[in-house]
Amino acid sequence: MTDRTGTRRGFLRRLGAAAGASAVYDAMRTLGHAAESDFTRVPPLAKPDGRTSVAVLGAGLAGLVASYELSRAGYDVTVLEYQARIGGRNITLRGGDRLVEMGSPAQDVHFAPGNYFNPGPWRIPYHHAGLLHYCATLGVALEPFVETNYNSLLHSAAHFGGRPQRYRDVAVDYAGYTAELLTKAINTQALETGLSRDERRDVLQALRLTGALDPSGQYHASDAMALTRGYAKEPGAGENGAPVPSRPLPRGELMASGLWQAIAFHQTYEMQTTMFQPAGGMDMISRAFIPHVGHLVRLKSQVAAIRQDEHGVSVDYTRLEDGTRATLHADFCICALPLPILDQLSCQVSSELKAAIGGIAYHSSVKIGLEFRRRFWEQDDAIYGGISFTDQTISQISYPSHGYLSRGPGVLLGGYMFGESAMYLAGMTPAERIALARKEGAAIHPQYDKEFSNGVSIAWSRVPWTLGCCSNWSDQARQTHYRNLVRMDRRVVLAGEHASYVGCWQEGAVLSALNAVTQVNARAHGGQHA
Amino acid sequence: MTDRTGTRRGFLRRLGAAAGASAVYDAMRTLGHAAESDFTRVPPLAKPDGRTSVAVLGAGLAGLVASYELSRAGYDVTVLEYQARIGGRNITLRGGDRLVEMGSPAQDVHFAPGNYFNPGPWRIPYHHAGLLHYCATLGVALEPFVETNYNSLLHSAAHFGGRPQRYRDVAVDYAGYTAELLTKAINTQALETGLSRDERRDVLQALRLTGALDPSGQYHASDAMALTRGYAKEPGAGENGAPVPSRPLPRGELMASGLWQAIAFHQTYEMQTTMFQPAGGMDMISRAFIPHVGHLVRLKSQVAAIRQDEHGVSVDYTRLEDGTRATLHADFCICALPLPILDQLSCQVSSELKAAIGGIAYHSSVKIGLEFRRRFWEQDDAIYGGISFTDQTISQISYPSHGYLSRGPGVLLGGYMFGESAMYLAGMTPAERIALARKEGAAIHPQYDKEFSNGVSIAWSRVPWTLGCCSNWSDQARQTHYRNLVRMDRRVVLAGEHASYVGCWQEGAVLSALNAVTQVNARAHGGQHA
Repeated sequence: MTDRTGTRRGFLRRLGAAAGASAVYDAMRTLGHAAESDFTRVPPLAKPDGRTSVAVLGAGLAGLVASYELSRAGYDVTVLEYQARIGGRNITLRGGDRLVEMGSPAQDVHFAPGNYFNPGPWRIPYHHAGLLHYCATLGVALEPFVETNYNSLLHSAAHFGGRPQRYRDVAVDYAGYTAELLTKAINTQALETGLSRDERRDVLQALRLTGALDPSGQYHASDAMALTRGYAKEPGAGENGAPVPSRPLPRGELMASGLWQAIAFHQTYEMQTTMFQPAGGMDMISRAFIPHVGHLVRLKSQVAAIRQDEHGVSVDYTRLEDGTRATLHADFCICALPLPILDQLSCQVSSELKAAIGGIAYHSSVKIGLEFRRRFWEQDDAIYGGISFTDQTISQISYPSHGYLSRGPGVLLGGYMFGESAMYLAGMTPAERIALARKEGAAIHPQYDKEFSNGVSIAWSRVPWTLGCCSNWSDQARQTHYRNLVRMDRRVVLAGEHASYVGCWQEGAVLSALNAVTQVNARAHGGQHA
Repeated sequence: MTDRTGTRRGFLRRLGAAAGASAVYDAMRTLGHAAESDFTRVPPLAKPDGRTSVAVLGAGLAGLVASYELSRAGYDVTVLEYQARIGGRNITLRGGDRLVEMGSPAQDVHFAPGNYFNPGPWRIPYHHAGLLHYCATLGVALEPFVETNYNSLLHSAAHFGGRPQRYRDVAVDYAGYTAELLTKAINTQALETGLSRDERRDVLQALRLTGALDPSGQYHASDAMALTRGYAKEPGAGENGAPVPSRPLPRGELMASGLWQAIAFHQTYEMQTTMFQPAGGMDMISRAFIPHVGHLVRLKSQVAAIRQDEHGVSVDYTRLEDGTRATLHADFCICALPLPILDQLSCQVSSELKAAIGGIAYHSSVKIGLEFRRRFWEQDDAIYGGISFTDQTISQISYPSHGYLSRGPGVLLGGYMFGESAMYLAGMTPAERIALARKEGAAIHPQYDKEFSNGVSIAWSRVPWTLGCCSNWSDQARQTHYRNLVRMDRRVVLAGEHASYVGCWQEGAVLSALNAVTQVNARAHGGQHA
C-alpha cells in the first residue's frame, strides 16, 4: 500500500497524527483491557481464632485497603513502608513538597497555596466501584473530573497550518461528514446495505439528527448545523443580536488530520463521563486511611528479604532512620510492593511466582505540572477542565477540574506521556522536561511564555520506590504468569494494581487487596486455598 | 410514505420515541437558536452629569445586572420587585420554602437540610460568558453540572421490552453500526462516494477507531468493542479476574427505538461539556447581587402603570404590604418584567413596542423535584449526575450533580417538560403531578416506590409573577417584533431573556441588561440612540 508520502514511516506518522490520544489509547489496549471493576461488596472476613498476625508490605492503596479490612476483622496487622509517607503512587504535590528521583536533582515544589498536582493517578471512572466504596466509607469528597470538554483543543503540527482546532468542531464535523456520506450511500441504493426498508428509514432519520444534516441529507453551514457547531458571530441582545452560523472544516483536511482520534479516546469505557477526582488532591484518599491504619504503619522501613516456613513469615527490613536491621514475624504476608522493587528482594517463594514477578514489564510514564500566574486557559480561551491533545512529544495538556474562574495562579498538566516519549523525557533532567513542555505548550497556548511561573516533573521509571509507572501486561505474560502471580504462595500473597485485570488503575489495587485478604482469611480459618 | 403502522400518527410517535430528548431538542430549535453569547466585556458606562435616576422594574437577573452596572457608574437606581425576594426565575427551593401557583394549593417544601431543587434555570453552558463574568466578579463558586453521563438510562416503553438502556450502549452501538455500514459502502465501491483515494483510507481508519470495528470493518462483540462498550463480566482481581466482553444491542431495534436522539441532544452547542451549576443552588447568583444592589430594591411592589413624557418616567405601583399606591419618578426606565406581565399593565409606549410585547408567545414548562430517602441511583445503579430520558410524559429524570456518594436523602429532577406535556401537567394539582412523576419514574427506577419521601412541582404558566417559563420566539415574531422590542422607546427600554437571541437562558437576561444600560447611558449623555 502506497500512501501520500510513499513511505511506511510517513504513513505511520500520519496515522498517529494526534499522537496524544492515540498513544494513550494504544497503551490502554495493552493493559489487558484495563477498565472497570467487578466489585460488588467487601468480602466478609471472619474474626480469626486467637491472635493471627499479618505483615503488609507497602502502604500504597493496596496495602492500605488490606490492612484496613484485616484490622477491622480482628487481625494483628503491621505495615512496612519505605517512604516517610503513606499512599504510594496515590500522591499529590503541593507547595513545600520535595520530589526525589534517582539521578536527578531533587525538586522543590513552589506552587501557590491551594494549588496542587497529581503526578500519579488523577481521575476515577464511575465504574471503579471498589475505590468509590472506600471514598464513600472514609468520607472522601469527590467532584467531577472534566474528561470531555468540547471547547478544548486538538493540535497537529502538520495540519490546519498548525492551528489548534476546537474539539467541538472536530467532533461535530466528523459526525456530520460521516452521516452525510452514509446518507448518500443509502439513498443511492447502489449498495446492498442489508438494511430493511424500515431500518433504512430509521437510520436516515438518525443520521440527519446526529449529523445535523439538512433535509436533503447534506452537511453544510446552516441553522441546523449551528445548533451543534455554534456560530461565527454569537447570538446576543440589542438590535444586532442575530447570530451567524459557523462554517465546517474542510472534510479532506479533517480526515487526514487524525484529530478524530480524540473522539474515540473520549468514548472508551475508561474515559466516559461521569469521571471523578477527590476534592483537594488524589492523596485525600490515602490520607483518609490514616485515622484507621496509620498507627499500624512503620514508615522508612526498607524491606530486604521475605522468608517463610510452615510456621510463619519473616520479613527482614532496614530502618532507614538509623540503618539498623530488624525482622518482622507474622503468620501471613501480603506483599503490595511494585514488581520492579519486589524483583530485587530476596524472596522465598515458588519458582513460578518468582518468574511471574520478573516476567511482567512496567510502563514508563512522565507527567509535568506547570503553574502559571493566571488561568489564561479559562480567562482567554473559555477552557474549563478537560484535555487538549497534540502530536508533539507532550501528548496532552489538561486543565484543572476545580477552582473554576478563580483569580491567581493555576496549575495545569503540561505533558503526560507513555512509551517512547516517556523514555525520551525520562532521560532528561526535570528542568529540561519542563523547558520542553513550555516550548511545545506555547504552540497551543501562546500565553505560556508570559505567564509561566514554575513547574515540577516526574519520570516514574526514576522513582526509587516504584521504578516504573505501572504494570504493562502483554497477552503472553497474562497467559503465562497471571494465575501464578495472584495465587497465594504458602503464606505470602501479592497485591497491587499489577495483581489484577484492572492494571494501572487504583481500582486494580483495591480489588487485588480484597482478593489477598480473602485468601489470607481462608487460610487463617484452615482452608488450603481461598 | 407508508410506515410500519400505516398511519402518520404512528410515524410521528415512532419518530418521537425518545420524546424527552426530542421535545427539548425541538424546543431549542424554536428558541431562535438560543445558544451562546456574544459577551466580551461589560460596556463602559460614563458617569452621568448630575443626578440621573433610573427605575428598574423587576429584580430578576436582568434587573439585577442593570441596577448593578448603573449604580456602579453613578446612576441613582431604584428597583421595584413584586415578590418578597429578589432573583425572579433565578430561584432555588429548599426545606421551609413555600411555592405559590395561581389556583393551586400552596406547596411547602420539606426537603432535608442541605438538599435543594432548582425549579428554573439549572445549568450554565461554558460559553455563556456574560453570566460567567458575573459569577467570577461576585464570587459565585461554580461546579460542573454533569450533562452527559454514559451510565444514565434511555427508556422507550415500546422498545427493548420497556427495559431502560444505558446511554453508553446506545451511543457506542450507534457509532459502531453506522461506522460498519459506511465502511461497507466505501469498501464495496459500488457507490460514488466522491472520496479521493487518500481520503478513503483516512475515513476507513477513522471509522475503525471511532466505531470500535474489528480489522475487517465489522462491529461485533470483541476485545476492541469492549474498550468502549464494556463487559458482560467486569475485569477483577484474583484467579477469576478475566473479563468477558459485552454484546451489542440488535441493530434494527436500536435504530427503530429512536433512543439515538439523546446522542444528538448531548451534542448540541448548548448541552456540550463543560456545563456548570453554582455550588449550593442556582440562586447563589442572585443572592450574590444583594450586597451590591439589595438596598436599591423595593420588594412587594406591584407595578400598575408606566408613563413617560419628555421630562421623565413615572411608574405607578402598589405596595403589597398595605395596599397603598405610590409613584416612582425617574429619568429613565429599564423594564425587566416578563412579557406576559408587562402585557397586562398600562404602558405608555409606541404601538410597535406594544405589539411586540403582546406578540411573543411564552413557553409553558413544568418541573418536578422529588426527594428520596437515599441516593439509590448512585448506590444501586452507579448513576452520578446526568440525565435519563424517557418517552413517557415526564420526559427526563436528572440526578444531582453534587453531594456524590453522600448518605441520607437526595433530590432529583423527576420530570421536566415543555410544550403539550407541560400544558397537560399544568392542568393538574401539584400533588397529581408528583403522583404522575412517581408512577412514570418507577418504570425506570423501581426503587421509587419504596424510597420516595416528598416532592414539589412548578408549572411556570401558573406562576403569578411570570405567567410562563420564557419567551418562545417564532421566526415570524422575530422578523416582525424583535427590533421594536429591544429598541429604546423614548425613556423606556426593555430587558430580560426575551429581549435577546439567547432566549430562555440567563445569558439572554444578562446581555439584554447590558444592552439596556448601554442605551440608557447613551441617552443620559445626550445621544438620541445608543
